[in-house]
Amino acid sequence: MIIVMKPNAKAESIQQVKSIIEEKGLYAHISDGHQVTIIGVVGDKAMLMDQNLEIYEDVDKIVPVTESYKLANKKFHPEPTRVQVGNVTIGGDTTVIMSGPCAVESRQQLLATAHAIKKAGAQILRGGAYKPRTSPYAFQGLEEEGLSYMKEAREETGLPVICEVTSLGAIESAVKYVDMLQIGARNMQNFYLLKEAGKTGVPVLLKRGLSATIDEWLNAAEYIIAEGNPNVVLCERGIRTFETATRNTLDISAVSVIKSKSHLPIIVDPSHATGVRAYVKSLSMAAVAAGADGLMIETHPDPSNALSDGPQSLTFEQFEDLTNELVPLVKLMGKRL
Amino acid sequence: MIIVMKPNAKAESIQQVKSIIEEKGLYAHISDGHQVTIIGVVGDKAMLMDQNLEIYEDVDKIVPVTESYKLANKKFHPEPTRVQVGNVTIGGDTTVIMSGPCAVESRQQLLATAHAIKKAGAQILRGGAYKPRTSPYAFQGLEEEGLSYMKEAREETGLPVICEVTSLGAIESAVKYVDMLQIGARNMQNFYLLKEAGKTGVPVLLKRGLSATIDEWLNAAEYIIAEGNPNVVLCERGIRTFETATRNTLDISAVSVIKSKSHLPIIVDPSHATGVRAYVKSLSMAAVAAGADGLMIETHPDPSNALSDGPQSLTFEQFEDLTNELVPLVKLMGKRL
Amino acid sequence: MIIVMKPNAKAESIQQVKSIIEEKGLYAHISDGHQVTIIGVVGDKAMLMDQNLEIYEDVDKIVPVTESYKLANKKFHPEPTRVQVGNVTIGGDTTVIMSGPCAVESRQQLLATAHAIKKAGAQILRGGAYKPRTSPYAFQGLEEEGLSYMKEAREETGLPVICEVTSLGAIESAVKYVDMLQIGARNMQNFYLLKEAGKTGVPVLLKRGLSATIDEWLNAAEYIIAEGNPNVVLCERGIRTFETATRNTLDISAVSVIKSKSHLPIIVDPSHATGVRAYVKSLSMAAVAAGADGLMIETHPDPSNALSDGPQSLTFEQFEDLTNELVPLVKLMGKRL
Amino acid sequence: MIIVMKPNAKAESIQQVKSIIEEKGLYAHISDGHQVTIIGVVGDKAMLMDQNLEIYEDVDKIVPVTESYKLANKKFHPEPTRVQVGNVTIGGDTTVIMSGPCAVESRQQLLATAHAIKKAGAQILRGGAYKPRTSPYAFQGLEEEGLSYMKEAREETGLPVICEVTSLGAIESAVKYVDMLQIGARNMQNFYLLKEAGKTGVPVLLKRGLSATIDEWLNAAEYIIAEGNPNVVLCERGIRTFETATRNTLDISAVSVIKSKSHLPIIVDPSHATGVRAYVKSLSMAAVAAGADGLMIETHPDPSNALSDGPQSLTFEQFEDLTNELVPLVKLMGKRL
Repeated sequence: MIIVMKPNAKAESIQQVKSIIEEKGLYAHISDGHQVTIIGVVGDKAMLMDQNLEIYEDVDKIVPVTESYKLANKKFHPEPTRVQVGNVTIGGDTTVIMSGPCAVESRQQLLATAHAIKKAGAQILRGGAYKPRTSPYAFQGLEEEGLSYMKEAREETGLPVICEVTSLGAIESAVKYVDMLQIGARNMQNFYLLKEAGKTGVPVLLKRGLSATIDEWLNAAEYIIAEGNPNVVLCERGIRTFETATRNTLDISAVSVIKSKSHLPIIVDPSHATGVRAYVKSLSMAAVAAGADGLMIETHPDPSNALSDGPQSLTFEQFEDLTNELVPLVKLMGKRL
Repeated sequence: MIIVMKPNAKAESIQQVKSIIEEKGLYAHISDGHQVTIIGVVGDKAMLMDQNLEIYEDVDKIVPVTESYKLANKKFHPEPTRVQVGNVTIGGDTTVIMSGPCAVESRQQLLATAHAIKKAGAQILRGGAYKPRTSPYAFQGLEEEGLSYMKEAREETGLPVICEVTSLGAIESAVKYVDMLQIGARNMQNFYLLKEAGKTGVPVLLKRGLSATIDEWLNAAEYIIAEGNPNVVLCERGIRTFETATRNTLDISAVSVIKSKSHLPIIVDPSHATGVRAYVKSLSMAAVAAGADGLMIETHPDPSNALSDGPQSLTFEQFEDLTNELVPLVKLMGKRL
Repeated sequence: MIIVMKPNAKAESIQQVKSIIEEKGLYAHISDGHQVTIIGVVGDKAMLMDQNLEIYEDVDKIVPVTESYKLANKKFHPEPTRVQVGNVTIGGDTTVIMSGPCAVESRQQLLATAHAIKKAGAQILRGGAYKPRTSPYAFQGLEEEGLSYMKEAREETGLPVICEVTSLGAIESAVKYVDMLQIGARNMQNFYLLKEAGKTGVPVLLKRGLSATIDEWLNAAEYIIAEGNPNVVLCERGIRTFETATRNTLDISAVSVIKSKSHLPIIVDPSHATGVRAYVKSLSMAAVAAGADGLMIETHPDPSNALSDGPQSLTFEQFEDLTNELVPLVKLMGKRL
Repeated sequence: MIIVMKPNAKAESIQQVKSIIEEKGLYAHISDGHQVTIIGVVGDKAMLMDQNLEIYEDVDKIVPVTESYKLANKKFHPEPTRVQVGNVTIGGDTTVIMSGPCAVESRQQLLATAHAIKKAGAQILRGGAYKPRTSPYAFQGLEEEGLSYMKEAREETGLPVICEVTSLGAIESAVKYVDMLQIGARNMQNFYLLKEAGKTGVPVLLKRGLSATIDEWLNAAEYIIAEGNPNVVLCERGIRTFETATRNTLDISAVSVIKSKSHLPIIVDPSHATGVRAYVKSLSMAAVAAGADGLMIETHPDPSNALSDGPQSLTFEQFEDLTNELVPLVKLMGKRL
């Protein structure tokens, strides 16, 4: 942590800051510049966390030099994490494709989808039973009934299943039926939910918030891991920007940034990032080429009758075309589907 | 709702969309342009909500012409709503000032603050007992102990009290101690929490999410009202943009936009919007001049030792200076403090 | 300037950075932290500007501690600048209102507007003769013919006049007719144009770019001042964000930030910031209450027939209502209209 | 164009809008909905462009249904455009790599770079002789001297050359030396410069503005083409968002969106998009996999001594590694390097 003093800071002000630092058992390294004095703090800055040094006289600003997340930080855990979801490993030499409908609508719809995506090469079935929707009047999900179909689909196909959770009640139900919990973008900083998901020990897919920085996202992962659950997979799904040609803006650089700052696996969701079916294939290709550990892609037997997010869902045929195109690219990247 | 077809859409495609609309008992008004055909839907568009018309052949885009929120909509409820919080009315001819510490840290800190802000002219005491923090290692609040201090402060000063809630458990505790619940920016689309807050019937202060559009914000309010709780006050607290000179960017236009689209009262939180104490006064003046129904301003007996958000808190003296400056402006706006 | 080394940086890497600094005649202050080593540079950092220290081995990041603009910086010029435009002073104890049509369309339109805004209390006449338009097929301005009407309007009313310039040719014409040049948002980083405007010595109104940080904006002002022209007035006109309820998002905090970082006057343009006539009054009030030195407001004799930006223009009657409401607020702020 | 009236619009208001439309020789198709009346305009909406219909009584909003750019629009020009730059074709079955230093610093630096990038497989040499820099005190380019080195490098290596232009003077010089002009992000809406570049007939690389929508970008291209110069190549180089982990946010979806809306070729600049050397390779791979027609990548003989943008430049060795990795991917995409 570095403390930058204002130009012409009084000697007493500098001395005051120095004293506060030393009272905490830390060392203050003072550097007098031509224009400003800078105080470097040597020691564990966590001890200063509850001190608001900015408010002392003549203090201009505080510059943090280390990240606040530790357990999610590559610096302290250089080996990549592999997360086991049923018989599937995320973060290793396989590019994992999760697919399925945005919302579970019926037993028939889900089973048909499960068989179709398995045939096309997907390894995990996704399906929403608790749907966060902007309007209270939109379809909100089948809840526990939907979860039971997810379980049945796993039994029929052998595919592990993942479902979004939006409350403690949903977590308590979901752990009885599914192999992986999803925390959605709108709940990325619902810290209560993160802790509860952490306590389950069940693998968690943590989607990036609409306007979350990568730093905030890794801090959100830290909440889960700090509860003793290291099985966290990140999912980039587009951020909110001024551009309206796509629903969100896929931050493809996030794949590289996460790989350099964290040991957690990262997958990409091109369906939510773009909101437009016609762009899903090229974004899937881009994500794999950028080094993502997997993809989450929406499919639906009949997108024109989907109760949620139809315009971005692929038909089974389109999905199979996509996986067929991905095979040689995945191989080129030194992985397998 | 308007459906814009692609240039040169086939007659069958147009007929197909027309049929879907008519099957729902609605009327399709077809308008053939030089370049494109447009289909206007006459009737209640809610009946089409689960149809994803975008996915039909030759459909270019869907343009909604009415908002999805009804109960929060000024069109259907032209009279401004007044929300009663203890003996204070928000949304009438008073400019309501809520003040207090970001986090309740101790009984002594809260009581000292309550007396100081009352003396300076504030009408409601705020204080956080459940703190959503980016890092799991930062101070998370005193929880129920903090709530009990809030209640005691109300008994001592007569000021109604407000506290943020972050989970169902927090709501269940808070309703026993406080007069108004706050839903914070990070939970604005935690729809589960919105519904639970709605069920209590207790007045709710709904902060705008960091990257929430005004439309999404009013839909979030709709979740609360739809549970039978019309006592919703909105709070603009800055949105996330590229600018880094302030912590967030106060969207001052939101005051006017809300006043034109909704009947709900709106207050402004300049402390969180800017994150810099020196800018709080000018933003408070701006908010009142723009027509806000109130302000939420952080104060602390000793900001330099605050456990949360010290740099943006005012001292008691600074707060009293501010309210003194506000008095003539409030009067000029035809209101009273 | 502070150089933060990576954790476990090698001693040779630290020594290398130290040598580079010392070769430039500066002093390197090394501070060994628990986790990272920090090197403070003592001396004039401009000498290091062309060195890309980030690229040396084991360097993690560079943290600038001083701004790159000097002439626009309040630290080195604490007294507020007053800019004289004809007989009007911007930056003093007057709130200066500039008004007029977005585009000059005819002699009659401009003269009628000039008389009307003068009667209502405006001090400067604005009018566009060179219009930057998104589409090449939209009206682009009357150019020199428009300028001649501006001059005539000044002669008739005594109001100083301001016009946007978009090229060297436009500057060369404009200086013959008008009292103040405007650099528009789209040209804020057209550094060639900034320099040419600087060379004229004529007062310049510098609008903020759509996505310009305040730091970039002040650097743009620095380009003009560095050419020997200190007569720069800044104009906040809204920034681009995700919100679509208004055309742009007025960054009202920019008024306070500029006042704390620079000595230059700042005015606010609520017409372009919002794009909606109904919101212009409340934003004008907010800007004056926030401490702005003036306003720029669009007016038009018949907004329904305006060739550019009609929906945000006020009629003469609406403008007069606005100035009438502003008078007591301006007085309350200790200024006069 | 669709005109949405306000709820309960008066019959006279609807009639007034209808009359205005019909006066222009167009047809107004009126559709009475339950809540609102909608008026579809049949005919060439350009005739209404200068009418600000929004300002008429009871008009709620105007919804455009067709794009304002025509010459850049795929609807009216379905075949992809191929732009010939010297002996290189952009937009065909070759993935074109442009490379070189951000700024031309010396003859030796440029010639060394030209030979190195040619050996590694690049087809076009880039180099900046006119540098737009945020601060007036940063290195601004060698201007005509730099252009002469570019020409010499072309003669030595046979590589076509491209240089950014920032003023009419720069264009007039550049056309004597280089094969392609670049309009940079900061000048994307410098409409004067776009027109002048259009008049030259020389191929133009048009970078996307920092906060330009794709629609505005295509309108900027329209300015160039409307001057009779169809040789426009677009370059996505990252947009400005709230995220600070990378300098800008590469909008990878822009590749697909442009391919669906326009016939113009599009390349990607991962160096400026990220600002971090370590992320350039993965973004290059992503861009090619997304379908980009080429890449622009910064290289420098000694990035640690670069006068501009060193941290994002690749060494020759790193660049050669990159092109070696790209070869099989380009082949997989059905193209050649």
